Amino acid sequence: MTYCVGLMLDRGLVMMSDTRTNAGLDNISTFRKLHCWQQPGERVLMLMTAGNLATTQAVVSLIEERTKAPEDRTPSIFAAPSMFQVARMVADILRDVISQYANAGQRGDATFNATLILGGQIAGGPMRLFLIYPEGNFIEASADTPWFQVGEMKYGRPILVRAFDPAMSFEAAMKLLLVSFDSTIKANLSVGAPLDVVLYEEGSLRLDPIRRIHARDPYFRTISEGWGDALKQAFDSLPDMALTPPKG
Amino acid sequence: MTYCVGLMLDRGLVMMSDTRTNAGLDNISTFRKLHCWQQPGERVLMLMTAGNLATTQAVVSLIEERTKAPEDRTPSIFAAPSMFQVARMVADILRDVISQYANAGQRGDATFNATLILGGQIAGGPMRLFLIYPEGNFIEASADTPWFQVGEMKYGRPILVRAFDPAMSFEAAMKLLLVSFDSTIKANLSVGAPLDVVLYEEGSLRLDPIRRIHARDPYFRTISEGWGDALKQAFDSLPDMALTPPKG
Repeated sequence: MTYCVGLMLDRGLVMMSDTRTNAGLDNISTFRKLHCWQQPGERVLMLMTAGNLATTQAVVSLIEERTKAPEDRTPSIFAAPSMFQVARMVADILRDVISQYANAGQRGDATFNATLILGGQIAGGPMRLFLIYPEGNFIEASADTPWFQVGEMKYGRPILVRAFDPAMSFEAAMKLLLVSFDSTIKANLSVGAPLDVVLYEEGSLRLDPIRRIHARDPYFRTISEGWGDALKQAFDSLPDMALTPPKG
Repeated sequence: MTYCVGLMLDRGLVMMSDTRTNAGLDNISTFRKLHCWQQPGERVLMLMTAGNLATTQAVVSLIEERTKAPEDRTPSIFAAPSMFQVARMVADILRDVISQYANAGQRGDATFNATLILGGQIAGGPMRLFLIYPEGNFIEASADTPWFQVGEMKYGRPILVRAFDPAMSFEAAMKLLLVSFDSTIKANLSVGAPLDVVLYEEGSLRLDPIRRIHARDPYFRTISEGWGDALKQAFDSLPDMALTPPKG
């Protein structure tokens, strides 16, 4: 399994993913699921992947081959004129990779499916955030739903629904995501630290390197331990039910 | 879908279920999923059902036929000498009903599976809580894990993990379950009010009628609205991350 969240804030994009992959419960590994590309001042692209690792690695390799040898391989995500075109290109690659394995050769126990979150900005256009399906189509985040989750999304969703605010700071967004990831990690063995995160400030057209947050990270531990107490206090602050004998 | 939770507290059992059933998104109905039987002073039994409605209704009908005509139908859940025997009886009925439809006639799009939570007490024995699988085997709650969920369990699980305390009062347990159900109802259209709940005080060997909590119930609305604010405050009470430029 996997857990990735992409948030579109007023001030920019935040992308966070876990790094655990598993083939069964007894075969777990750590792989990067957050990938970034940039031409500083011109475009930044961030991609998070959930699903079959062979599929998602092939997608990333195909994207990177294209960026590395643009004279041989067009269209490239660095040449696409808009984020919509980038999304279509990545979606086409995803669909092609899946169909290559799905329709030929031995059948695997697992499917070859994968789902992607793509965010970024190209000079002259707004920042955009897409959710790309294995079928090769995609949807875009909007003011009504300015965030996407992929993978094991249910445990960590209620806090996002309740506490997300597009006006929040990067610092608060990091806290929100760490709470959401902590709840998920506590509930599903196939989601695990370290976590990768990248913050993109709208209009900057420049990305810092990916930050990696380990399980032993002091701030992550503060959040993980503090959230249990804070939640307990929140729970205690609500009135108990006055139980009267039921009618009937 | 469905959401049911059975809690084993120090002072007794609490069973809560939603009442929504659905066949697709465009065909939803309200059905009772919490069923109780008692011989006051001798035994109380509570059953919650998740899964194929035809299967779960057949299971309940078979259980009730047996209790209604004990001279024709033995063994009955009222004659079983222990909660373990009751669980085995209910599990056998469940497995038989599923195999009757699974192995004959037309194949349905949906499976005939169902999962049950059974709780109760028989005079002379302790109260016990079981989770019964469609295969006809079952597990029992223990001090380590004194509660079970069935159905759409993920959204409402983190708050149970964080706030459950076996020493809590029935009033606090109702609050906990309403928070958990509210998070689930807000996230999954196939889980819906009204909610059914029954409280069993250990050793009383007597059950009040099932309480039904409607969406308009003032206390439920207080919890539903108050929880958002309380969660927001809990979130704000944690420190924001101090973002320094990443190394690398």
